[in-house]
Amino acid sequence: MIEEVKRGFFADWHNLDAEKYLQLDYYFETTSDPEEAAAHLCQEQSTAQWKRVGVDEDLRDRFGAKVIDLVVEQTFDKPNHPYLAEESKQSYGCRVKIAHPHENFGPKIPNLLTAVGGEGVFHSPGISTIKLLDIQFPESFMQHFEGPKFGVSGLRDMLGAYDRPLFFGVIKPNIGLAPEPFAELAFQGWLGGLDIAKDDEMLSDVAWSPLSERAEKLGKARLAAEKATGEKKIYLANITDEVDRLLELHDIAVERGANALMVNGMTTGLSAVRMLRKHTQVPLVAHFDFIAPFTLIPDFGVHSKLITKLQRMVGFDAIIFPGFGARMKTPSAEVLQNAEECLKPLGHLKPSLPVPAGSQWAGSTGDLYEKLGTVDFGIVPGRAVFEHPMGPKAGATSLRQGWEATREGISIETYAKQHLELAEAIKMVS
Amino acid sequence: MIEEVKRGFFADWHNLDAEKYLQLDYYFETTSDPEEAAAHLCQEQSTAQWKRVGVDEDLRDRFGAKVIDLVVEQTFDKPNHPYLAEESKQSYGCRVKIAHPHENFGPKIPNLLTAVGGEGVFHSPGISTIKLLDIQFPESFMQHFEGPKFGVSGLRDMLGAYDRPLFFGVIKPNIGLAPEPFAELAFQGWLGGLDIAKDDEMLSDVAWSPLSERAEKLGKARLAAEKATGEKKIYLANITDEVDRLLELHDIAVERGANALMVNGMTTGLSAVRMLRKHTQVPLVAHFDFIAPFTLIPDFGVHSKLITKLQRMVGFDAIIFPGFGARMKTPSAEVLQNAEECLKPLGHLKPSLPVPAGSQWAGSTGDLYEKLGTVDFGIVPGRAVFEHPMGPKAGATSLRQGWEATREGISIETYAKQHLELAEAIKMVS
Repeated sequence: MIEEVKRGFFADWHNLDAEKYLQLDYYFETTSDPEEAAAHLCQEQSTAQWKRVGVDEDLRDRFGAKVIDLVVEQTFDKPNHPYLAEESKQSYGCRVKIAHPHENFGPKIPNLLTAVGGEGVFHSPGISTIKLLDIQFPESFMQHFEGPKFGVSGLRDMLGAYDRPLFFGVIKPNIGLAPEPFAELAFQGWLGGLDIAKDDEMLSDVAWSPLSERAEKLGKARLAAEKATGEKKIYLANITDEVDRLLELHDIAVERGANALMVNGMTTGLSAVRMLRKHTQVPLVAHFDFIAPFTLIPDFGVHSKLITKLQRMVGFDAIIFPGFGARMKTPSAEVLQNAEECLKPLGHLKPSLPVPAGSQWAGSTGDLYEKLGTVDFGIVPGRAVFEHPMGPKAGATSLRQGWEATREGISIETYAKQHLELAEAIKMVS
Repeated sequence: MIEEVKRGFFADWHNLDAEKYLQLDYYFETTSDPEEAAAHLCQEQSTAQWKRVGVDEDLRDRFGAKVIDLVVEQTFDKPNHPYLAEESKQSYGCRVKIAHPHENFGPKIPNLLTAVGGEGVFHSPGISTIKLLDIQFPESFMQHFEGPKFGVSGLRDMLGAYDRPLFFGVIKPNIGLAPEPFAELAFQGWLGGLDIAKDDEMLSDVAWSPLSERAEKLGKARLAAEKATGEKKIYLANITDEVDRLLELHDIAVERGANALMVNGMTTGLSAVRMLRKHTQVPLVAHFDFIAPFTLIPDFGVHSKLITKLQRMVGFDAIIFPGFGARMKTPSAEVLQNAEECLKPLGHLKPSLPVPAGSQWAGSTGDLYEKLGTVDFGIVPGRAVFEHPMGPKAGATSLRQGWEATREGISIETYAKQHLELAEAIKMVS
């Protein structure tokens, strides 16, 4: 039995004003009493001390986080994840839903992350491992977030590309080329069928490829490719940099010819992206650096789908995240959850384009289409385009051919008999 | 044997220009050939494709990350950390040192984190688990970082407090009190002996306690406490908020009477802190929210001491981090490493004050002094001061008494016989 006083951190959801609370879902394991551990979790993440000495008051009613559901899902003979448990004794795997009053901190990303993933969560007494699985935001909170400015339909309108996936290509060699030869590679990729030629996440504003010069060269190459193909094209420039340079780099890149911008959201900060969203004239694209270190471990950290949701809330129009396949270390169900977080209804927010990444090639389009069950996705190969033995133009063409085969319901092997670029692409991965 | 071509990602450190490279230390496990895995790790984090198709070039010499040391430390019959390995077969635990050319991205925090903790690291082929342990920065890189503006000696000068630890107190109830009663608690704490009364990491600029009003009330209470005690005092206000409000909130808080500022560095973004450092007129203090999710797991993620180093580099004058004791889930050796990262020589940077946190009380001062071997640390209790049965003034007094006992070489139990506040403090933890 838990102390009676801890009952102040429990409530019935139906007695609470839904608009005043976030609903937090956690999985945790404890070797203590599960109710006691859940009460601690609420206490530590909200009003840790809820009264002054010598004053008759209880701040929990208004400011306390409250357990609204607790289920012991599993009982283990010993700690299931021994890396954090202190003793080898019986442990409980629990799902808890917590109502957290958002007026404690307000609709702000840094303060939200502190509340739901700070000291009060990861150092809560009696909890050996914990994973933040999801957050439901009421409209009173969500209304403060602008979300994608363009969204999926905005990106499609820019490209005039409907009823098919969007073809991204990461220009490679990703690091080391000067702007001029780099632009030539992008040009070839666009000619072959890329919609969006993009900088690698590692390429930023550097002395050997200043963003100003790169945006100018790629901007010109983009216009030339549009003229040559009769299609609209996007140059996606990576402006990841120190926070106080983001708006300046936006202006430099956009003025010179970039018509979409990438930011590594977690390394730059989601709050900085939200600031950029207020300023941007072009779509913003997320890359997933530094997310794996706190999402990859089962039953610990934060679930990646929540990070995708937050990236949509702060304004990313497209979100690149780890896709299918062993290399990306992400279970298929989790990849699907991330795609859903991009597209499903979320308050007044537009959908973001999901872009599952990692070792993509011509054969991936059909695979992704089948698994995701929609054409609203992007495919983002790098070497499959730019290391194609016939060159980047042929590499990009092979992507389109992969999609044509899918659309026509023909296997890529059969389709490749009449399409040399695709045949060579198949050879590359064999 | 690894492919001959992968040898391009190996180098002898003595043949490289030390000023051009960061040295990265990783622990990783692989079920593949360790040299092959290490080569992949270098390739994926630098020039993933190092030549154009049809062009005779090799970008690796200048832009490639390079293995400069590789030691297979352990061989396991099966993956040591099964949560990420695909198969139950022999695996190798390896230490690798990589020379990474920093001109690939420049002296920028977001791009650094992308390079050393991005897709190229946590999704590198053949690596089942990986932890970034440390980075050595050459002076050519470090010179761009300003580090603490005040540092340990600056904080001591502000307080006129030398040859002893600094006494922080987290004002509690942390959430829910209006500025007026909140200031009264701080005042009592200062009277009793706190040097620094601080906002909780969960308390920010909110409707029920606007920072402007809080800073004004606490500022006045601070001056009153200075007058009453004849000692200098600090009000440490938490300005954690959206990035585009940080400088404004700095000005609001400092103009009204806060004379140090706290930012939850990881949730706000280390780059944003670096921006604030350029602007600040007062010391900056770090709190460790959202660091545990990627540092707590053994052999995975990022070592906490590196995050402490980065926090010092971006300009924090004091760094609060998880301290000793089971609740903080941090091995004692790691707590010591974090304290060392604050204080040890690091280029031209001033030391930051280490503040090991978590369930601190009067008895912790002696314990910390003994373990850290220096008086250059802060102690940061919350409830031990503000839930002390005799009130916050007595709670703060008990801290000072705990330190007096240590200084005089008397056990706190003996000292408590003549000091009621300390006696009550001992009862609280018993």
